[in-house]
Amino acid sequence: MGAQLPRSPLAPDGFPDLPRIGGLSVATAEAGLRYSGRPDVMLARLAPGSAVAGVFTRSATRSAAVLDCQSKIRFHSQAGAAILVNSGNANAFTGKAGEDAVKALTRAVAGVLDVPEARVFSASTGVIGEPLPHEPITARLGNLAAALSPDGLAQAARAIVTTDTFPKGSGTTVKIDGQPVRIAGIAKGSGMIAPDMATMLVYIFTDAAIDQPILQSIVSALNETTFNCITVDGDTSTSDTLLVAATGASGIRVTEHSMAFMEGLRRVMLDLAHQIVRDGEGATKFVTVSVTGASSDRDARTHAKAIANSPLVKTAIAGEDPNWGRVVMAVGKSGAPADRDTLTIWFGDILVARDGWVNPEYSEDAAARYMKNADIEIHVDLGLGGGRATVWTCDLTHGYIDINADYRS
Amino acid sequence: MGAQLPRSPLAPDGFPDLPRIGGLSVATAEAGLRYSGRPDVMLARLAPGSAVAGVFTRSATRSAAVLDCQSKIRFHSQAGAAILVNSGNANAFTGKAGEDAVKALTRAVAGVLDVPEARVFSASTGVIGEPLPHEPITARLGNLAAALSPDGLAQAARAIVTTDTFPKGSGTTVKIDGQPVRIAGIAKGSGMIAPDMATMLVYIFTDAAIDQPILQSIVSALNETTFNCITVDGDTSTSDTLLVAATGASGIRVTEHSMAFMEGLRRVMLDLAHQIVRDGEGATKFVTVSVTGASSDRDARTHAKAIANSPLVKTAIAGEDPNWGRVVMAVGKSGAPADRDTLTIWFGDILVARDGWVNPEYSEDAAARYMKNADIEIHVDLGLGGGRATVWTCDLTHGYIDINADYRS
Repeated sequence: MGAQLPRSPLAPDGFPDLPRIGGLSVATAEAGLRYSGRPDVMLARLAPGSAVAGVFTRSATRSAAVLDCQSKIRFHSQAGAAILVNSGNANAFTGKAGEDAVKALTRAVAGVLDVPEARVFSASTGVIGEPLPHEPITARLGNLAAALSPDGLAQAARAIVTTDTFPKGSGTTVKIDGQPVRIAGIAKGSGMIAPDMATMLVYIFTDAAIDQPILQSIVSALNETTFNCITVDGDTSTSDTLLVAATGASGIRVTEHSMAFMEGLRRVMLDLAHQIVRDGEGATKFVTVSVTGASSDRDARTHAKAIANSPLVKTAIAGEDPNWGRVVMAVGKSGAPADRDTLTIWFGDILVARDGWVNPEYSEDAAARYMKNADIEIHVDLGLGGGRATVWTCDLTHGYIDINADYRS
Repeated sequence: MGAQLPRSPLAPDGFPDLPRIGGLSVATAEAGLRYSGRPDVMLARLAPGSAVAGVFTRSATRSAAVLDCQSKIRFHSQAGAAILVNSGNANAFTGKAGEDAVKALTRAVAGVLDVPEARVFSASTGVIGEPLPHEPITARLGNLAAALSPDGLAQAARAIVTTDTFPKGSGTTVKIDGQPVRIAGIAKGSGMIAPDMATMLVYIFTDAAIDQPILQSIVSALNETTFNCITVDGDTSTSDTLLVAATGASGIRVTEHSMAFMEGLRRVMLDLAHQIVRDGEGATKFVTVSVTGASSDRDARTHAKAIANSPLVKTAIAGEDPNWGRVVMAVGKSGAPADRDTLTIWFGDILVARDGWVNPEYSEDAAARYMKNADIEIHVDLGLGGGRATVWTCDLTHGYIDINADYRS
């Protein structure tokens, strides 16, 4: 598996205290699929009445587990539900055998926990193209079921990682009609060693009571401005999965008009999304790219992603070089409308260029000093309309090459 | 300007002997715009009756010189023509001053060579965002005009480079009705040091006699499968320019039915395109990505470009890792139709995966040995239809990071 990677310099100080979610219990186990001396399987049980919503990779070569989850996510039931995740083997591009493994695993979980098979969601992350040996997992399901605990989520954050350099968690408690509603989530992100893949897995739980279609529409909408607005290298995994489960244990009913709940969920999703970027392969800078003044929000996102995915922009940031010319280049190549002569660019508070040329008061020295920060903000105003978007990314460094080229499994 | 880069390990043995093109004369000069001790300006004169066709960057933030060329390229005239190129300053994102510089330069050339201003094409490559001091160039135009020579093209290949590690030339002589028709071209490619940009400039000359609209349609068509099918990092310059000029000096008339001419021109264009990839920043591998069996040629190219631009694929190649899972990932994310279960992947002659899973006879050792070659071929068959495309790229190495992040101008 190559050497253990050092903890990202952008990592948070520690793992947060997550609120306990009624109706959720979690256990982990060591199945030894690829890693040893650490948990690599997580099992979560959701109480009867839980609603589960999901967003999945749009890859045309998505994994068997993703296809299985997608087929089940709209199944409405008052029965309980379960989530099974393993790290070490992605069970992706494994043909019919991959589908059989998903079926065997979800059926076994259904039997052990007495929930419908159509309510068992699974995910796998790790090496691709190797058959998933599901027996080591099914053999441990009895022990996992016995170990299910309301406090298991923090340990689960450690079980689902592959080569992440820190476990990722986020939680909040919001008040609805004066009553507390809790939200807690975990994620794994884009650390990997060849031939693993940078799968993003996110599991968020709340004790709010929400109808599944409403939960799904809230999650889909919030996903657009959180997880869909982060990028490490523009590559898309075959297995990206976000599940949000609402157990209803708080007894507080949430609708699409519950702004406090949506804001709390958005905060947790954005925090986890940012943590994934902060653990980007080789990252030394956390970069916020804001685009305003576009013809539409969609155009703004196209520009922001072009900037955030540009290897030339990302290497310049790694080199602490205020290379605004590369930002102009990225805007130009994005395919969305732009007018050179109405472009304005800021690095942080520094006005770099406006009206199609460098700002006469621009100081390269001041900009170079700004680029030494660990958190960098690039703001482009197109001067065309009211469209806006924000995208988060990291820099492209020797560390990325080290992780993806130099190590061999 | 940072340190002189070592010659690319993928460079050809030497600069080719180019056939002399009647009706073309070329001179170079040292204007000292940024470099010293080397030529940095090229002037080409084309005899009356020459046809000039061009293809330009689609960037929305294209440079003043590109906009000027585009406005002139359809101007039909029996007068002579000229091309002026400088390296060291790109005159891009320089607002109104940039347009004024282009006008001053092209007007001065028109005066010195007695050709219409509308027949003077220019290009600039180098630092962006700095005003182009055109006086050092205009002051040398008299000497340049006096030095125009039928043998100047090889020296011009050296004048237009920025941080390319070798000058790029290619030529051929084809027979039409038993008579020789000559084609010779030069190019600069994607070597750069911050804050320069990876501008591609290509100038090709032939002594064939061709009507401008026919030359333009031939060049536009051939460009699609040559220069438009190479990628180093997916970033697009503000100044990419390809000009093809036909002087007619051979007296041989070429039409869109002259297969020998088209094949010769295609060979020169492809050779120059490949040389640009072979001089890609930090390149240690020349990679041919072929996609067959797509639903359309367009879909095939979308898949091939997704593979060729994927940082994960490119770093795996740099690491000599036969990481076919990343090829699957890139196909999946491209957005064009693909079916996991009909995918077949070869590395060279090695059948890696078929029918959605790794080939049972696949040998990782054999594939790893293959990846040690300097020239790598990746072939993906989608099993969907008859669409095909080939794209050329290079690997993504520490050298790329060195050039784009570590050096500072």
